[in-house]
Amino acid sequence: MTAGQAPAVPDLGKLLSPGSIAVIGASPEARRPGGHPLVSLRDYGFGGRIYPVNPRHREINGMRCFANAKDLPEACDLAIVAVPAAEVPAVIGDCGRAGIRNAIVFSAGFSEAGAEGLALQSHLDTAIRDSGVRVVGPNCVGLLNLKERVFSGFGAAFRNPQWKPGPVALISQSGGFAYSIMAFCQEQGIGMDYMVSTGNEADLTALDFIEYFLEKDEISLIAVYLEGLKDGRRLRALGQRALAVGKPIGVWKVGNTETGRKAAVSHTANLTEDYDFYLDAFREGGFIELREVYDLIDAAKAFRSKRRPAGRKIAIVTTSGGAGVLIADRCEEAGLMLPALTNETTSELSKLVPPFASLANPIDLTAALAQTEPQFTKATGLVAADPNVDLLIIRSYPGRDVSTWAAGIAGAAKEFAKPVLVSLSGTPGQSAEWSRTLDDAGVACYEAPTRAVSAAAMLCGFSERERVFRAKGAPVRLAPRHALPLKAVMDELDSKRVLETYGIDVPRRVFIPVNGVIPDEVGLRYPLAVKIVSPDIVHKTEVGGVRVGVGSGELPRVLGEMKEQVMRAAPDATLKGFLLEEMASGVEILVGALVNPVFGPLITVGFGGIQVELFRDVARRYAPFGTDAARELVLGLKGAPLLQGFRGSPQSDIQALCEVISKVSWIVSDHEDTIAELEINPLMVGPEGQGVRAVDAVIRLRGNGSPSAQ
Amino acid sequence: MTAGQAPAVPDLGKLLSPGSIAVIGASPEARRPGGHPLVSLRDYGFGGRIYPVNPRHREINGMRCFANAKDLPEACDLAIVAVPAAEVPAVIGDCGRAGIRNAIVFSAGFSEAGAEGLALQSHLDTAIRDSGVRVVGPNCVGLLNLKERVFSGFGAAFRNPQWKPGPVALISQSGGFAYSIMAFCQEQGIGMDYMVSTGNEADLTALDFIEYFLEKDEISLIAVYLEGLKDGRRLRALGQRALAVGKPIGVWKVGNTETGRKAAVSHTANLTEDYDFYLDAFREGGFIELREVYDLIDAAKAFRSKRRPAGRKIAIVTTSGGAGVLIADRCEEAGLMLPALTNETTSELSKLVPPFASLANPIDLTAALAQTEPQFTKATGLVAADPNVDLLIIRSYPGRDVSTWAAGIAGAAKEFAKPVLVSLSGTPGQSAEWSRTLDDAGVACYEAPTRAVSAAAMLCGFSERERVFRAKGAPVRLAPRHALPLKAVMDELDSKRVLETYGIDVPRRVFIPVNGVIPDEVGLRYPLAVKIVSPDIVHKTEVGGVRVGVGSGELPRVLGEMKEQVMRAAPDATLKGFLLEEMASGVEILVGALVNPVFGPLITVGFGGIQVELFRDVARRYAPFGTDAARELVLGLKGAPLLQGFRGSPQSDIQALCEVISKVSWIVSDHEDTIAELEINPLMVGPEGQGVRAVDAVIRLRGNGSPSAQ
Repeated sequence: MTAGQAPAVPDLGKLLSPGSIAVIGASPEARRPGGHPLVSLRDYGFGGRIYPVNPRHREINGMRCFANAKDLPEACDLAIVAVPAAEVPAVIGDCGRAGIRNAIVFSAGFSEAGAEGLALQSHLDTAIRDSGVRVVGPNCVGLLNLKERVFSGFGAAFRNPQWKPGPVALISQSGGFAYSIMAFCQEQGIGMDYMVSTGNEADLTALDFIEYFLEKDEISLIAVYLEGLKDGRRLRALGQRALAVGKPIGVWKVGNTETGRKAAVSHTANLTEDYDFYLDAFREGGFIELREVYDLIDAAKAFRSKRRPAGRKIAIVTTSGGAGVLIADRCEEAGLMLPALTNETTSELSKLVPPFASLANPIDLTAALAQTEPQFTKATGLVAADPNVDLLIIRSYPGRDVSTWAAGIAGAAKEFAKPVLVSLSGTPGQSAEWSRTLDDAGVACYEAPTRAVSAAAMLCGFSERERVFRAKGAPVRLAPRHALPLKAVMDELDSKRVLETYGIDVPRRVFIPVNGVIPDEVGLRYPLAVKIVSPDIVHKTEVGGVRVGVGSGELPRVLGEMKEQVMRAAPDATLKGFLLEEMASGVEILVGALVNPVFGPLITVGFGGIQVELFRDVARRYAPFGTDAARELVLGLKGAPLLQGFRGSPQSDIQALCEVISKVSWIVSDHEDTIAELEINPLMVGPEGQGVRAVDAVIRLRGNGSPSAQ
Repeated sequence: MTAGQAPAVPDLGKLLSPGSIAVIGASPEARRPGGHPLVSLRDYGFGGRIYPVNPRHREINGMRCFANAKDLPEACDLAIVAVPAAEVPAVIGDCGRAGIRNAIVFSAGFSEAGAEGLALQSHLDTAIRDSGVRVVGPNCVGLLNLKERVFSGFGAAFRNPQWKPGPVALISQSGGFAYSIMAFCQEQGIGMDYMVSTGNEADLTALDFIEYFLEKDEISLIAVYLEGLKDGRRLRALGQRALAVGKPIGVWKVGNTETGRKAAVSHTANLTEDYDFYLDAFREGGFIELREVYDLIDAAKAFRSKRRPAGRKIAIVTTSGGAGVLIADRCEEAGLMLPALTNETTSELSKLVPPFASLANPIDLTAALAQTEPQFTKATGLVAADPNVDLLIIRSYPGRDVSTWAAGIAGAAKEFAKPVLVSLSGTPGQSAEWSRTLDDAGVACYEAPTRAVSAAAMLCGFSERERVFRAKGAPVRLAPRHALPLKAVMDELDSKRVLETYGIDVPRRVFIPVNGVIPDEVGLRYPLAVKIVSPDIVHKTEVGGVRVGVGSGELPRVLGEMKEQVMRAAPDATLKGFLLEEMASGVEILVGALVNPVFGPLITVGFGGIQVELFRDVARRYAPFGTDAARELVLGLKGAPLLQGFRGSPQSDIQALCEVISKVSWIVSDHEDTIAELEINPLMVGPEGQGVRAVDAVIRLRGNGSPSAQ
């Protein structure tokens, strides 16, 4: 590859595991960004070559200092750039010419810093494109690879040689916060092989690193601290990949509220979309939503082992009833199930425990067994072997003989593929040690029992999505792709024609041009709905442009009155004519679709009327999808009973409804470059077998450009 | 006081701070319940006198052992009872005769242990009543008073002389879990002066201890781990007292779900009411809902200082933008406000910070100030002094010079009465030390920034309820108390008459006995609603007992048909006659009232129809209350816009609605011994100024007893 060509797939291997590093803007002062990495790379065990670059020095820390990247004796795998912002574009150019393919830019003062910074970032973008150098940053604190001791960054996170490696990779858009997450995790015994601070993401983004770490076997959890991103579609694709490889992406997204959003923009200039789009992505992919640092710790412990629950049936084993009650509460709240054990397990257990033990789930083995081995281990082993159980939560106080106890649990756990989570109550100071013993044996260990339940819910939720992912094929298409009409603006007639091409029923209709003759026989079933057709009027009702229940003799009068009223209310609008339609009855449903520029096409379903507006009873899902997914959406609505014979009303045609929703999902997916929004409101859902009718529909196209013929 | 008379107010002082303790069932084996306290009282610094009692020993651990409590040389302040369950009632009798007023019973095997245990607990109840001895337990692990080194218990919690005292009192219905809470809190630097395990609560309950600790000045937080309680009204009264003395009661209630409830009953035989009743009590009183041990730690730190926020306006000061975004998100989610600083503060701040600092709230002073004193302290002092700010959250990385930094913050905080919460990001191992420095200065210190926000929300919520409590007088009564009719069962006519005596409008009506004559002129405005009156039929519609829109000539036919239809559908019911009523229109509201035997009278308000059933859009509050509180309930409904001119409908008569709700609250409060339930459904709320009408109403009396005349 030559300069001028950006590689399609970034070679992050060399970036994260460089054999040689140039520090451009090197400084003899260890506290300065250009000085810090020289010291930490040298002192903390980096095995490769380090080259200071700075025209103002001939030597730094006993190392020869080079005037320019071009003078270096080799094309380094990585350049660390710590020069003033204005010099960065030129330095990136130098790197390209010196054959350096990767750079980390610490310098701040780019897109996060007002108009001047924006201009500078645009220069940087050009330099990156022209040089072919892949860049992390600017405005970042660098990268940490603890296994290979690559401390290629500056600041607090790069000042601690004691950090422990581990199967977590942390990617953060906030350098400062990355450090505090690391510190907290390390205190809780969670090590990290990698920490990546991505800063302004002029080139490489958090998504590039997610993609890279998904394929790294030794990483069991990718944790991402996000303020925003520019490619939600790719985030969604990575979510699918995460399910395919069985590795969760924990996303801690901030900047979700109005205030937080404003603060995020001023912090790293990141685009922040409505958090709902992220949540929709989390639900369909291999994501874990993180809301605080404890969630990250829960996930890191839970996913360290490769064991996954086959379902959501939890057995709780305790040696004190109090904690069992608490854990049972939390399990039920989290949608986990507490099955009864088989008679066989119960009968075997009863031989091990005192008569006052409770063998219902939660199982209280009693304090008598807390410190009694091998009975305790044998009892937990019996529960873990029960075919009714998918995951085991053990809560106990192991007393003084901790090593025997922990070894016993670890041994019992090894016999089963099921996840075992332990919550230990212990004497202060000791718990960390027990925890490590168990963690090392693949048994996740939590101090707070509530945290073990959160972790169980994460495991069950992720595994469920993995199973769905493996079972599903591509979504089934119920109608072939159809072109949109070649129009700049689509009115109701145009929109309904599109629905019809996709096989969606609309009421039978007759169009009468504004000065056309009203035929004696329109060929429709009376009474009719009459609506104006005008490309300029969106809210027809507000200008008197809708009348319903119009009888057979009334048409001439109604059309006359309507014309007069609309022309008075909207004198500048072009009135094309009138739409006469048969009236439909049924349950009113709203089907909305929008194409989010960042995340892609999304379908929203809800009931018409106050349910959507006051109770926000809507369900959302990215398009396209088949009828089964549509059914999940519909049945997930709180108002779903309204379609299922609520209070004696007839059962609605849910199948037909789901087919329409799926078809709408294909319409917007087929035309996601063209359509901005589509709304059917109301879609009238008739009784079972009688189908649905799109009574009103509007398709709004993107921008004011005309759609391309497709 | 003599034996046989239980004191009205328990003297918990002597129980918790005894000068002398008898250990009945004393054992030379330190691991047995009767042996453990002898050792820990002796070795851990208890300053009083200890007397072993056991007829099988003459001496234990070098102390003279007495055969019976009666033989003791003094009437001890406390007896610890560790004898087999069957012997406990007799031992309590012995204690009473020996002048011992307080006992802790460790022994298990009472109401938690099936029918046999229940019988034994009944014997114990008698012994308690007859002896006048106040008893903690049975089935408890004892009491801990760390300030006076009273280790009067057994098991893990009483085996650690290193526990630190502190301003928290922990009361727990689960002995095992109390220990694990203590251990966790101590690890987080939270000390406790008292730990009380209340077990089966045969006599003294968690509520008795709450009442006691509320009046103890040195306790700043009472934390209670509850599985259930028998006197919710008293819990509510204690909630009011907590507001009066400005001290929160943190309640960690478990056994809230179906599974958890079952487990709780088998654990300590505690009655568990629906958790909603607890939540209603929390909202009206000085409670903090705890859901996990971290919540307890947050609250303990937040309430250690006496500073309270005057409102919910939060200033966030950070030295790294990333954390500011996160904190802003969480504040907005928690309903906290982020005001702008005054121009004066902003202008003063700008002299201290680099030009790229962000002085909008969240305020990013930038990393340049993180380790720069006195600028950082001065800047936080300026923000704390801003009149727009009620509470300050500081998030920083204090770097190496922690002591200067912490002292600076502590000093600045002291100048203001406002609460200051700090979240520190630091190197593992160091944070505990910084945290202590700040905590000691009344500045609560949290590692996770999300936790500082939780604590801020706790402080703001509690202080708001304190202000409401101080401002409010007794609820205003809109109608005088009226007696109920002397009836065993009340039909619709009876129920409506009760409403009328309280000044609630019902539709004008005429009653026609089942074989009465239908007058030509009933004196009502047509059309009418016609309903059967029968004490045996609750659901009139289901038997064809309701017709609406009945015109003036139709009455004879309608009554005839209705009679026939009802007698066919419910042949055994007594049909008293027919109620003819004028029809009312408006928005349909449901007003429900029930008297919960544990918590007292409660009002529920919601919209009629699907809103209640499908969306659970209801608001609840304990009765009685005035119209202002009723207005809060109504406006808190998601459907409230339906009363406020939604989509062009007329504004409803909300004032009249609120008056009715308040009056209903008085009806059930005035008759809480008699009424079980009252429901008005629908209450028709007319347009503003046109009042409301109770269209259907039913009052169900308690049990089948007839109400006493009141």
